[in-house]
Order: sequence, then C-alpha cells, then structure tokens
Amino acid sequence: MSAVNELKEIQKKNNSMICVGLDIDRKKVPPEYASTTRGLYDFAVAIIDATADIVAAYKPNLAFFEELGAEGFSLLEKIVKRIPDEMVVILDGKLGDIGNTAAHYASAMFEKLEGDWVTLNPYMGYDTIRPFLDYKGKGAFILCLTSNPGSRDFQFLHVLNKPIYMFVAEKVAYWNKEDNLGLVVGATHPQHLREIRGVIGDLPILIPGVGAQGGNLEEAALAGTADFKHPALINVSRSVLYSSQDENFAKAARAEVERLNGIINGLREKQSTETA
Amino acid sequence: MSAVNELKEIQKKNNSMICVGLDIDRKKVPPEYASTTRGLYDFAVAIIDATADIVAAYKPNLAFFEELGAEGFSLLEKIVKRIPDEMVVILDGKLGDIGNTAAHYASAMFEKLEGDWVTLNPYMGYDTIRPFLDYKGKGAFILCLTSNPGSRDFQFLHVLNKPIYMFVAEKVAYWNKEDNLGLVVGATHPQHLREIRGVIGDLPILIPGVGAQGGNLEEAALAGTADFKHPALINVSRSVLYSSQDENFAKAARAEVERLNGIINGLREKQSTETA
Repeated sequence: MSAVNELKEIQKKNNSMICVGLDIDRKKVPPEYASTTRGLYDFAVAIIDATADIVAAYKPNLAFFEELGAEGFSLLEKIVKRIPDEMVVILDGKLGDIGNTAAHYASAMFEKLEGDWVTLNPYMGYDTIRPFLDYKGKGAFILCLTSNPGSRDFQFLHVLNKPIYMFVAEKVAYWNKEDNLGLVVGATHPQHLREIRGVIGDLPILIPGVGAQGGNLEEAALAGTADFKHPALINVSRSVLYSSQDENFAKAARAEVERLNGIINGLREKQSTETA
Repeated sequence: MSAVNELKEIQKKNNSMICVGLDIDRKKVPPEYASTTRGLYDFAVAIIDATADIVAAYKPNLAFFEELGAEGFSLLEKIVKRIPDEMVVILDGKLGDIGNTAAHYASAMFEKLEGDWVTLNPYMGYDTIRPFLDYKGKGAFILCLTSNPGSRDFQFLHVLNKPIYMFVAEKVAYWNKEDNLGLVVGATHPQHLREIRGVIGDLPILIPGVGAQGGNLEEAALAGTADFKHPALINVSRSVLYSSQDENFAKAARAEVERLNGIINGLREKQSTETA
C-alpha cells in the first residue's frame, strides 16, 4: 500500500485528522515521570494507550530524544516499537543532506527506527529527498511554509511573481510519482495554506502550529483539506501532552483529542450538509 | 574566546585549513573494523591520532551515527570526547526547527555531545538559529550554497536581482554579532564562493565538496579565503578516511592530509610572495 493510502486508511478508521507530536520534554512531563528514561517511556506509553483509537498518527521530534544522548535514542526506538502497527509514525527530524548522506539518514529513519514517514528540509534540493523515496510504502513530508516567525525570513521571498514556498510546493507535487510525498504547512498561515492546497493535487499536508503557536484549528482543517476533499494531518503537541500535570494526564490528553476531533468532525458534517 | 577566534587559533597552530569529516561508514572502513561499534571507534581514534597535529577541525556527520541507533549515538559521544580539546568539533546535522525545538537541539549538540560548532539549515529563519547563539564560545555554520546537484533546485532562484543564497549570506552576516556564525558553501561552485566571500566580512566559511564530489582544492582555498585574507575550512571526508583499505589506513590518511596542506600552503606562500 502507498504511504498516502495507509494514512487515509487510519484516518478513516479512527475518524481523526489528529497527529500527536511526541515532544517528550523532561521539563514538562509530570514530575514523577521526569527523572529517568523509564519514566519518560511510561509517560509516552500512557499517552499512546489513551489516544491510539482516536488519532491517526504520532510524530516524535528527534530533538527531544537527542538531547538525552544515547539513552534518548534508545527511548525513541522503544516508543516507536510500542506504537500500534496500523498507526502512522512520522519521525520529525527536518533532515536534509547530500545524496550519499541522505541514504544513511533514510536507513536510520526507516530501517533502524522503523518510522513510516519523515520530515525533510527542501533547501538542498532533490538529491537530498530521493534516497527516502527508494523505500516503498514509506513517505516524506517536505517543509514548505513553516509555522514559526522565522518563516518570514526566506520562505516569503518572491521569485518572479511567486514566493519560494510555492516553488517548493510545485516541485514536490512534480516529484511525487508514487503517493509518498507530502508538505508541511503551518496553521499560522491559513490563507497561504489554502493557496498551496490549490496547486498540489491530492498530496497530504502535515499542519503544525495549532495550539501553543497560535494557529486556528477550524481554519487549518478547512484550508488544509480544501473543505475535506484532500488529506491533511493536524499536529498537536504541547496542548495534548501537557494538558494536565496530575495523575489524570492521559485522560486529559484523550479529552483534548476528543475535543479537537469533535470540532473538526462537526465542521465536516456541516460542510457535507451544505454541499448536499 | 569567541568561536571564530578559537578556530583561527588552531588553524594557525597546526598550519592547516583542513577539517576531516568523520563520516564513519561501516561499508567503507577496513573490514576488520566494520562489524562492531568498538571497531568503528578504534578506526576513528586511529584517524584522529594520525592527524590531530596537522588539521584544524573534525566534523562528524550525524547520519552515520544515527544509522546505528542508540549504539551509534553512544559511539558519537565517545568519539567527540576523544578528540583533543584544542581541536574544533563541528557536529554536522544540518538542523533547523522552530525556536522551542531548536533550544533542545542546541542542548543536545553543545551540552550532551559537547560539540563546538553545529551546521544549521536556514530555511526556517532566525528563530531556528537564535537558541544556538545563547551558548557563548560556540558557533554555527549556516547552509548557504551547498555542494550537491540539488543546490540548483532552490538556492539559485533569483529574488529581484539576487539568488536566494546571497540573501542567506547577507542575513547571516547581519545576524553575526559575536563572532559565532559562519556559512557552508560548496567547493563545486568556486565562482559563487568568491562572490559570497565578498559580502560577508570576516565570517568563516566551511567548504565541503572537494574530493569525491569533484570540487577543486586550489580554487576553493583561494576563493573561500579571498586569497588568504579571511578564515575558511576545507572539509575532506572519504578521500582521507578511506584512502587505504589495508592496515596502513591511518598513515595513508595522514599522508593525504599532508598532501592537501602542502598544496594549500604552497599557494599561500606564492600569494604572499606575489603580494610582497
């Protein structure tokens, strides 16, 4: 099955566009989980077990694990193995290097860590992306227009009549031959998200920036899917993982995901009623 | 001491612009070193011990270590610790993420792994770079114009009358307030390397792409330093690490570095004679 079809399948089964960003931060987990990697593992497992039937994907960000050194890398390996097989696992490293090196990253992400998707940075061009495409059934989300303030520094520069991020969007759509590429577009740019959605066919969009970064959930869901006609994932990290600091944190995480699913599915129903 | 001054000092002491890229590849080390991480460590140590008095820096690329999982990360920690303190260690991960995450990468690279410099990708802008600048005495090389074929995909797009890579060069020069930023510019673009050198003041340039990738050493050394007036590092990886497959590999690595130093220092003398 193509990487995109696998994504669509779990979204349909769990009736959810939500991706939970597993940014496991020692400084933010409840204190009794913070002091050992075993504690962090138990925290992550509690979150996974509380949400695996109502989300579509998990996205561990490599920074939070590399910060813990070899132990952190081992923790990441264990957490990925613990996620149910049917779920989509996105390894978020925003990688990008020359072809020879990119092949080693692809091996690290897809063989060693057994991720389903990766995130990649487009700055170094096609040969940094190609080695990841050699893995059948795996996929890559390419950074297009990011959610952070620094997105203004280079991504909006205009080449002729188009911003850089539109060049990236069009190139990635062109490179996508086997339903294994997608884009990262931040919820903090809803208008541009809709504009990008308009030129990339059925490519999935991974949308960060809702929650702590200030993006609007409803706008992101509608713009990212072109009113539910195309696939998108809405990533949420801090607002789900750390919605409670007490022993009920996993229950609180589930409640937060249910709230987000409710808003999105409410929109979807409204949309289909209006269209009907 | 600023990160750039530390770099200049070791370059002067060892009379070398060479940075050895520690891309430790199981498939390329002599077979008796390939099967265990202990073997890979011994290989790296032999290379370091054979070259530490005639090079300026070592640059381990994270991909080759992440490919080996937690064990690989532990190997990287041990190799970095084993490099003499006076040498510059560049951790090459081409990282770039939103500010909150970038702070965790900075902690991973500078605190956990104890690197001196990192490589960063500019696509996500200033807030992805800023957390690294909070570490006094540490530095960051920002990708500007890379050595690979994919550099043609986006980096050469023209914004008004300037290619993107010149925008990056000028922004990084502007962001550099404490002698802790540099640029990555590939030796495969010697003409553009000279052009970039012309607009960035005394920023150091890390120059990959000599050797296996086809860049010319003499051109890179002259263009990258504006005829030895500014700091640059020439990175060599495969041609030094794997110059011999027999038991003399470390001696062969040293001989290759001496050959490169000889060419560069010959050029420098010629230059100073001509200028005098």
